[in-house]
Amino acid sequence: RAYSTAVPKTLTIGLIPGDGIGKEVIPAGKQILQALPSQYGLNFKFLDLRAGFEEFQKSGVALPDETVEILKKSCDGALFGAVSSPTYKVKGYSSPIVALRKKMGLYANVRPVKWVEGVGIPVDMVIVRENTEDLYIKEERIYEKNGQKIAEAIKRISENASRKIGKMAFEIALNRQHVRELGGSSLHKSPSVTVIHKSNVLSVSDGLFRETVKKVYESDPARYGSIEYKEQIVDSMVYKMFREPAQFDVVVAPNLYGDILSDGAAALVGSLGVVSSANVGDDFVIGEPTHGSAPDIQGKGIANPVATIRSTAMMLEFMGYQEPAAKIFSAVDENLKENKVTTPDLGGKSSTQEVVEDIIRRF
Amino acid sequence: RAYSTAVPKTLTIGLIPGDGIGKEVIPAGKQILQALPSQYGLNFKFLDLRAGFEEFQKSGVALPDETVEILKKSCDGALFGAVSSPTYKVKGYSSPIVALRKKMGLYANVRPVKWVEGVGIPVDMVIVRENTEDLYIKEERIYEKNGQKIAEAIKRISENASRKIGKMAFEIALNRQHVRELGGSSLHKSPSVTVIHKSNVLSVSDGLFRETVKKVYESDPARYGSIEYKEQIVDSMVYKMFREPAQFDVVVAPNLYGDILSDGAAALVGSLGVVSSANVGDDFVIGEPTHGSAPDIQGKGIANPVATIRSTAMMLEFMGYQEPAAKIFSAVDENLKENKVTTPDLGGKSSTQEVVEDIIRRF
Ligand SMILES: CC(C)[C@H](C(=O)O)[C@@H](O)C(=O)O
Ligand SMILES: CC(C)[C@H](C(=O)O)[C@@H](O)C(=O)O
Repeated sequence: RAYSTAVPKTLTIGLIPGDGIGKEVIPAGKQILQALPSQYGLNFKFLDLRAGFEEFQKSGVALPDETVEILKKSCDGALFGAVSSPTYKVKGYSSPIVALRKKMGLYANVRPVKWVEGVGIPVDMVIVRENTEDLYIKEERIYEKNGQKIAEAIKRISENASRKIGKMAFEIALNRQHVRELGGSSLHKSPSVTVIHKSNVLSVSDGLFRETVKKVYESDPARYGSIEYKEQIVDSMVYKMFREPAQFDVVVAPNLYGDILSDGAAALVGSLGVVSSANVGDDFVIGEPTHGSAPDIQGKGIANPVATIRSTAMMLEFMGYQEPAAKIFSAVDENLKENKVTTPDLGGKSSTQEVVEDIIRRF
Repeated sequence: RAYSTAVPKTLTIGLIPGDGIGKEVIPAGKQILQALPSQYGLNFKFLDLRAGFEEFQKSGVALPDETVEILKKSCDGALFGAVSSPTYKVKGYSSPIVALRKKMGLYANVRPVKWVEGVGIPVDMVIVRENTEDLYIKEERIYEKNGQKIAEAIKRISENASRKIGKMAFEIALNRQHVRELGGSSLHKSPSVTVIHKSNVLSVSDGLFRETVKKVYESDPARYGSIEYKEQIVDSMVYKMFREPAQFDVVVAPNLYGDILSDGAAALVGSLGVVSSANVGDDFVIGEPTHGSAPDIQGKGIANPVATIRSTAMMLEFMGYQEPAAKIFSAVDENLKENKVTTPDLGGKSSTQEVVEDIIRRF
């Protein structure tokens, strides 16, 4: 990865809780970092940053410029909670997480979904989602024709972004194989990358995505030759992901398909509450649980902190701190395997705070 | 529905097998119609029609004008098999099923997914997919900027098409409730319609879809008041569909989300080989299995004919012939419940032809 592995004494982490249970899980990520054993030589400084729909309702701005500036100037990494974007059109409002990904150049959204051995369906895949374009450019217009409204949105796929995400996917496949060879457990013996598209219909746009990723693969046989290259049409992929999830290792997808597939993959491991992600650019990373703001359980203190805790570990991983990241991952796995101290979404009775403490005591 | 319930003596059915196993399952649909008990007073005449990738390779045209003309002039309904659209760009080629839906004005793709009681996960839903627009208009372009390719596709959502598909969804919900009240088995006590969108990001285009469907609902409380109105964001829907499928009755979606969701729903009932669909317009219907051309099993005589047989029943249903349709559906259900004569995709050892005969003997 492009991150330095030199260990500074103090890392500054931006905390952006956002809305709803974002406010309950981000503090969990903070506690985890504070509780890291001193052997890793890391100290943390935290900066509380604003963003979200509530923020918009207060100040008229969902993502204050100040938040982006502080991230760029003063932070080494960040954690983002969740936003409760309205589904209806609110004048002047636009999803702050979508904007943040773009403004910070976080072109990849990396979403691993791994079973805990013995619990649930065997699955060990990572979805590498392009994070800046596709329909997420939000270039939309609406007009009238014969008194009837017609709306259009542009789906944009660029060679540049497709190449970058393709490269990231193959590198992640190699890295996963490397970790496996060091003795990490996995369903896979050898690496594979599956490219998602719908180019039987969108031969030009999804065609460009598919071709560009394929070219990345073919351009460096010395480096990527050990990886199996596969393709799936997005609808068929949803079917196969549920029928035979164990066959997928790294999955690379344009933005929207990646969004849809990662929620689907989350269903395989029992709860969105355990699925983490990292928004990754060339020089910054934001950890983000994949779940939403969950208004139904907000304020009850029972939000599952696991997704955020794993996202915190992913943040460290992409910043180059493999060892503390591995420590966090294994503490979480132990908690899940024991299956005693879990939140209600996993069938348990524990609170957010109890789960945090149960994970910390395993450090 | 807009179809006449008067029973003519002879119905002319266009048969479009297409590619791969399409050629093996369409004859199954034909046999089923031929074997219908005489009590229904129906005779069938069949017209063999050309379309598909193989056809394109032979003649340079994937959907001959003649096929469309004959459907319009001479057919009362039709069955379509499958096409093996290439995922790479082939000059002059364009998916014939996408074109057919548009040219015949078949604005709805209706895809029921129902468990056989006692077999698998409880699910009883129907996906009502808009069938003519969204990204399927295939208005794409590609250009260069600083030596890098950029491709764009337009996603179009119109008030007209959204209203029509919304209306169809609410009418189907009422009809399903009607069938339930006549004693049909179901997971649902009361009807609901769930609208799928991603308007937290696409507030204009998916926003128009969502609003328009909602307006249809609100415009006729006397008729639709008994239906529960719900909404789901597409990514969240994939998650919920797998976690709690039993809660969904009618699901209405723009074209692409409907495509993706219906493959996902198929995974719930064990095999794409049992999931049927109907492409429905105001005055024509084409039954179509949701599976593809399946080159891996082509020519082996083991393709599951159930999806096509159910699609044949759906065709009759939308043409106004409820009773023979119900007879076919229940013969299929009995075959599946007994679980003796099934094709390999369902874990069985029978051939396509054996399954067809096992179903026919139950008429
Ligand atoms: C909240 C929403 C804009 C977001 C997305 O679609 O990217 C979410 O679903 C996610 O996956 O992070
Ligand atoms: C073959 C393809 C064009 C088609 C579609 O995307 O509509 C298929 O997936 C379907 O669902 O009927």
